[in-house]
Amino acid sequence: MPRKVDHRERRELLADALMRLAATEGLEGVSLRQVAAEAGVSTGMVQHYFRTKDEMMTFALGMVADRIRARSAEAVLPAAPREIVRSVLLQILPLDDTRRLEGHVGLAFLAYAAVKPAIRTEVREGAAGMRGFIAQQLRTAGAHGIDPDIGAITLMALVDGLGMQLLSGQYADEDAVAALDVQLALLFDAPA
Amino acid sequence: MPRKVDHRERRELLADALMRLAATEGLEGVSLRQVAAEAGVSTGMVQHYFRTKDEMMTFALGMVADRIRARSAEAVLPAAPREIVRSVLLQILPLDDTRRLEGHVGLAFLAYAAVKPAIRTEVREGAAGMRGFIAQQLRTAGAHGIDPDIGAITLMALVDGLGMQLLSGQYADEDAVAALDVQLALLFDAPA
Repeated sequence: MPRKVDHRERRELLADALMRLAATEGLEGVSLRQVAAEAGVSTGMVQHYFRTKDEMMTFALGMVADRIRARSAEAVLPAAPREIVRSVLLQILPLDDTRRLEGHVGLAFLAYAAVKPAIRTEVREGAAGMRGFIAQQLRTAGAHGIDPDIGAITLMALVDGLGMQLLSGQYADEDAVAALDVQLALLFDAPA
Repeated sequence: MPRKVDHRERRELLADALMRLAATEGLEGVSLRQVAAEAGVSTGMVQHYFRTKDEMMTFALGMVADRIRARSAEAVLPAAPREIVRSVLLQILPLDDTRRLEGHVGLAFLAYAAVKPAIRTEVREGAAGMRGFIAQQLRTAGAHGIDPDIGAITLMALVDGLGMQLLSGQYADEDAVAALDVQLALLFDAPA
């Protein structure tokens, strides 16, 4: 008896196909038809799971965010705030094939979202949640030299910028990690 | 007698049409034909000035960089290093319509460059020059608490990240400026 196809699993399979295309082609030019071909299914099947390309892209971005959170959670629990923040932010930087692929998707999605206001909500909510978490860690560490909300903005902007610049080959991975460590030292050690 | 059409001027006119499309459509889906329609000229005319879309995009990015440099130069000359760096970086943040349009182009270009290694050179050289300039200003100011080359990486990554996050509506313009000012204070006032 054939295994019942899991709805979520099938959507993830299609979103993974979209991600592979995003990494090699960007997102704007990608059609549902291409995603179907990449995933080895029919276009009708794709349309059964996602009514529009925007719906599929939003799902894919949420999937990437879930995976980053899952990896972060593994590294985080018994650590001090500064180590927690470092672990989480390192999961966003494109430092291996998985994270490079996710980085391409994130960058392509941001470029797409910049011209499609209707799909910005997902980006905005995910990012606001992450900044709130980082600001909380800065507060827990007693790092009050800098306003924690502004400190969280600098860290998230820094990591997005470093990631984008790594993906366009501007410097070595080690330079990006060094820049992140400098920023963590500046914020967590800033005199109150 | 009709004025002789200036080659550079015509290329800028076409690149401006590309920029307007980039801001509303992104870059990946844009064709030479659409640029011709947006500029009100024939497709053949576009092909006379740019052999490929990548050539036109590289020219447009260089044009944006030139304009940012020109605006920065006005604000910069009689100031101290920290003010110089602040003025230059504010020219990159999308804080008015001109800079938002340039920001969209920059973001679309980076997303495109991330999947087209052949056109990364322009991005890389422009960014390396800017980082070198900022590192020099940090050295001139005697800000040796942080390695000036790493400090320059943090500033350029921060500004690219802030710009991208502003374009996707993540927070207010004032928050981005506050984050930049915090970063300048951290780097220029870091104890040696």
